[in-house]
Amino acid sequence: VRLIDQRALPGELRFVECRTVDELCEAITSMAVRGAPALGAAGAFGVALAARTIADDDGVQAAARRLAAARPTAVNLAWGVDRALGAWEQGGPDNALAEAERVASDDVAANRVLGGFGAELVPDGGRVLTHCNAGSLATVGYGTALGVIRAAHEAGKRPHVWAGETRPVLQGARLTAWELERLGIPVTVIADVMAGSLMATGDVDVVMVGADRIAANGDVANKIGTYPLAVLAREHDVPFVVAAPTSTIDLGAPTGAVIPVEERPDDEVVSIAGERIAPEGVGAANRAFDVTPARLVTAIVTEHGVLRPPYEDALRAAVMRA
Amino acid sequence: VRLIDQRALPGELRFVECRTVDELCEAITSMAVRGAPALGAAGAFGVALAARTIADDDGVQAAARRLAAARPTAVNLAWGVDRALGAWEQGGPDNALAEAERVASDDVAANRVLGGFGAELVPDGGRVLTHCNAGSLATVGYGTALGVIRAAHEAGKRPHVWAGETRPVLQGARLTAWELERLGIPVTVIADVMAGSLMATGDVDVVMVGADRIAANGDVANKIGTYPLAVLAREHDVPFVVAAPTSTIDLGAPTGAVIPVEERPDDEVVSIAGERIAPEGVGAANRAFDVTPARLVTAIVTEHGVLRPPYEDALRAAVMRA
Repeated sequence: VRLIDQRALPGELRFVECRTVDELCEAITSMAVRGAPALGAAGAFGVALAARTIADDDGVQAAARRLAAARPTAVNLAWGVDRALGAWEQGGPDNALAEAERVASDDVAANRVLGGFGAELVPDGGRVLTHCNAGSLATVGYGTALGVIRAAHEAGKRPHVWAGETRPVLQGARLTAWELERLGIPVTVIADVMAGSLMATGDVDVVMVGADRIAANGDVANKIGTYPLAVLAREHDVPFVVAAPTSTIDLGAPTGAVIPVEERPDDEVVSIAGERIAPEGVGAANRAFDVTPARLVTAIVTEHGVLRPPYEDALRAAVMRA
Repeated sequence: VRLIDQRALPGELRFVECRTVDELCEAITSMAVRGAPALGAAGAFGVALAARTIADDDGVQAAARRLAAARPTAVNLAWGVDRALGAWEQGGPDNALAEAERVASDDVAANRVLGGFGAELVPDGGRVLTHCNAGSLATVGYGTALGVIRAAHEAGKRPHVWAGETRPVLQGARLTAWELERLGIPVTVIADVMAGSLMATGDVDVVMVGADRIAANGDVANKIGTYPLAVLAREHDVPFVVAAPTSTIDLGAPTGAVIPVEERPDDEVVSIAGERIAPEGVGAANRAFDVTPARLVTAIVTEHGVLRPPYEDALRAAVMRA
C-alpha cells in the first residue's frame, strides 16, 4: 500500500510504502495518512494486504481488527475495513482487493457529486472559512469541504478561502494551503484564534468543514476546533456547513455523546517541528476531535444531496441510498 | 532600560539593554517586551531615557510620540508615556525617572490588590482557563489574570490552570506555563482550539484573561482568541472574567469599535521558530487582538474592586479613584 506521507508536506512530497499490516497501522497512528475518507480506503487496502500476506484466516481477521482500531474517531476506517473484510470472506484476496479499489473509486465519485451539491451553498465571491484539511489528501481524491470549494471555483464563483492553521498538527497551514495553492484558489492562512474576529468584522460568508463521524441525530465529530467555529458561526448568523460522504455517517451512534474522542500524545502540542515550545516538565492535553451538536449545523452535504435539519430521517435515507 | 527578552523564553532567560529610544521602540515592536501594563512601564522609562539622552525639548517630545505609537492597541503604552512626559515637563529628567519608577511600583501594587479581589471569583479547586500571558512578564510584577490565580493559590484554593498556547506567538505555552511552573501552580497547556471541547465536557470553571484596552462601555480588547473564549463561555454558562488595572481603561474610547487593532507581520503565522510551516507563496492574516463586547464579560477585576455590568458608571468611578 503506497501513501503520500502527509507529515512531510508542504516541504516535501514523499511516499510511504507499507508492506505489512503493522507498517500500515503505524502509518495510520502516526498520521502519515489521515482524513476520514482516506482512512476508509487505507483500511480497505490494509485488509487486501492482510489477505495477501497472511496465510491463516484468523490472522487476517486479527489484522483487520488491528487496522480498524488504529484510530478510534473516524468511522470510515472501520467501515472500509468491514467492506473489504466482507468481500474477502465471500471471495478471497482478489475480491478484497477489488472491493478496496471500489471503496477508493466510490470515494472520488462521491466527493465530486457532493462537491457539486455543496457549491450551491457558496455565494459568488464567497469568503469560505475551513478548518483542518478535508481535501484530496484527506480523501482518495477531490475532497469533501475542499471538494465543495473546488466545485465552486470550477463553477466560476471565485471563492476566497480562510484556512485555519489547525493546531496542533497544522493540517490547515500545511495541507489545505498546499492543495489550494496548487489549484489556483486564493487562500489566506490564519491562526485558528482569528476566526472569531473575522466573523465579527463580517469577513466570513460560510464555514465549510469535513467530518470524521456523523451520529444518527446529526451531531458531528470533526477535528478539534470545529465546535468553536460552529458556536461562533451561530453567534454571527454565518452558515455552518459539513461536507461528508455517507461513509462518514454512523447510524449506530445515536448522538455525538457516544463517539470516542481520540486523545493524542501531548508532544504534538508542546513541540513544533521537533522544537520544544513549552517549558520542560509542563504537560499538555490533546483531544484530537470535538463534537458539534446538530442544532449548530446549517446543512450536511452528501453525495445524495444537501441535508437540512432535522437530520435523523434525512441521514437514514441518505445511508439507505448509498 | 533593561528588560527580560520575552522572545527567548522559556528556553533562555536573557535580557535586552536599550540605551536609546530607538532601541526601546524596536524592543516594543518586536515584542521583546509585551503585555499592556509592562508596556506602560516601558513607555514611562522610555521617556525618562529620552529626557536623559536627548538634548532638545522637541526631540524628547518626538521620542515620546514614537514610543507611544510603537504598538497601537494597548492603551497603557501611551498612558505610561503621558505620565512620564507630564512629569518631565514639570520637573525635568529626574522627575520623569521618578514618575517612571512610580508607574512601575504602582503597577505591582495594583496587581497585588486586584489579585486579592479576583481570587474571590476562583472556586476552591477551580479549573481556570487563561489565554496569552497576563502574568509577571506582562506587567511590572505579580500579574493581572495570573495575579488573580496566584492570589487564589496563595489563599489555598488549589487552582488548576488550562493555558491556551496562544498562537501565533505562543505566549501561553511559552510564558504562562513558565511562570506557573516556577510558582508551583499546576498548569496544562492546550492548543487554543481545545477550549470549546473542555467547556463542553464541564472542565472549565472560570475563564480569566487580561486586557490591552477597556472601552468606556466595558468592551475589552485583548489578545486575538479572547473573543471566541467569551462566546464559548457564555454558551456554557462559564464566568468570563477580565483582570486589569485601571491604567488599561480608556474612557476616551466610547466602545470597542474605535480601538485600533494591530495587524502584525504574517511571518508570525506562516513560520514557527524560524521554520516555515505553510507552503511558500501562501500568505496569512494576523490581527493581534480582538474585541469582546461588554455583554459577554461577567466581571472586570481592578485594583478598586470587582466591577459588574452595566460597566459605564463603574469604570468611570474606578478611573476617578485611581
